Amino acid sequence: MKATGDIQCIPIGSGVSVRAEVKRAHAILEESGLKVTLHPNGTSVEGQLDEILAAVAKIHETLHAEGVVRLVSFVKVATRTDKTPSLEGKLFDTRH
Amino acid sequence: MKATGDIQCIPIGSGVSVRAEVKRAHAILEESGLKVTLHPNGTSVEGQLDEILAAVAKIHETLHAEGVVRLVSFVKVATRTDKTPSLEGKLFDTRH
Amino acid sequence: MKATGDIQCIPIGSGVSVRAEVKRAHAILEESGLKVTLHPNGTSVEGQLDEILAAVAKIHETLHAEGVVRLVSFVKVATRTDKTPSLEGKLFDTRH
Amino acid sequence: MKATGDIQCIPIGSGVSVRAEVKRAHAILEESGLKVTLHPNGTSVEGQLDEILAAVAKIHETLHAEGVVRLVSFVKVATRTDKTPSLEGKLFDTRH
Repeated sequence: MKATGDIQCIPIGSGVSVRAEVKRAHAILEESGLKVTLHPNGTSVEGQLDEILAAVAKIHETLHAEGVVRLVSFVKVATRTDKTPSLEGKLFDTRH
Repeated sequence: MKATGDIQCIPIGSGVSVRAEVKRAHAILEESGLKVTLHPNGTSVEGQLDEILAAVAKIHETLHAEGVVRLVSFVKVATRTDKTPSLEGKLFDTRH
Repeated sequence: MKATGDIQCIPIGSGVSVRAEVKRAHAILEESGLKVTLHPNGTSVEGQLDEILAAVAKIHETLHAEGVVRLVSFVKVATRTDKTPSLEGKLFDTRH
Repeated sequence: MKATGDIQCIPIGSGVSVRAEVKRAHAILEESGLKVTLHPNGTSVEGQLDEILAAVAKIHETLHAEGVVRLVSFVKVATRTDKTPSLEGKLFDTRH
């Protein structure tokens, strides 16, 4: 099932700067095969619902394997059956 | 990997009352094998990270199959490597 | 305007344990005059919309004044004109 | 206190298409004096924390006055005392 979504991953206790961890999480999304666009509070994603959710799991597994102790992710996923959901469609609807 | 989380699923365009859909989503979580607790803005969940995320996908698949046209889910998932995450632990930490 | 909501406040870079900050944030909500209920991933709130939002601002101001360097809050607020929104109503709708 | 944030406002029961309401909410943010940038799942905002929160209240008040029956907003707000928070800074940190 095609979906759009938004993923923000925040490390807790990794220091006041979370730049390295947020970059790493975004890189994992870029390598995921999903369509991704960075914005200031997360990454917009488009793809199969299960692949979006699998990417969230991969971020947690990878960052923990690389030493991050605590992580919390804020995820939005949206699906619809009346038309194919897309990031472009969502932007277009608001702009026009 | 063990995780705690929070899942709120909202149908869009199903009418002003979303009671039937929210009940259905919560029932799917209760049948999922995850530890779940209802609260006014979602369901707290505890279990394996991939099972929590699979439950989100199952809610979307099931509700769409039952006729809901549009759904958006708001999901939080939290993991940590220094101790086993639990819903009880999170509540205890805030209360004591 | 009466509203229900959910507030989760997370300190970033305050250490892996965020217990002290989360307790402090919840205490500010309890002193706010809003109706509040703790759950594992935040605090459910009920009251006037502007008072809920003012409580979010007060958490940030207070915790920063007490030395917390970085804070992010995740807030849900819901309003409706067909009936008076309440936390109890939301729970009842899902349970019955 | 300067803050960055993210606001997504969703009408419930206004039909499967929420285009009109989402456009209206975004227009209110554009008229608010805050720095705003649209993305597919919300609007990024930068400004004073209390002005960001006041804009959320204004969206609810305005849309209800215009006939929308039920609204839920998902809001993130972030503040820090070690440097001035900005949307550009958040993007830069992830990109570089």
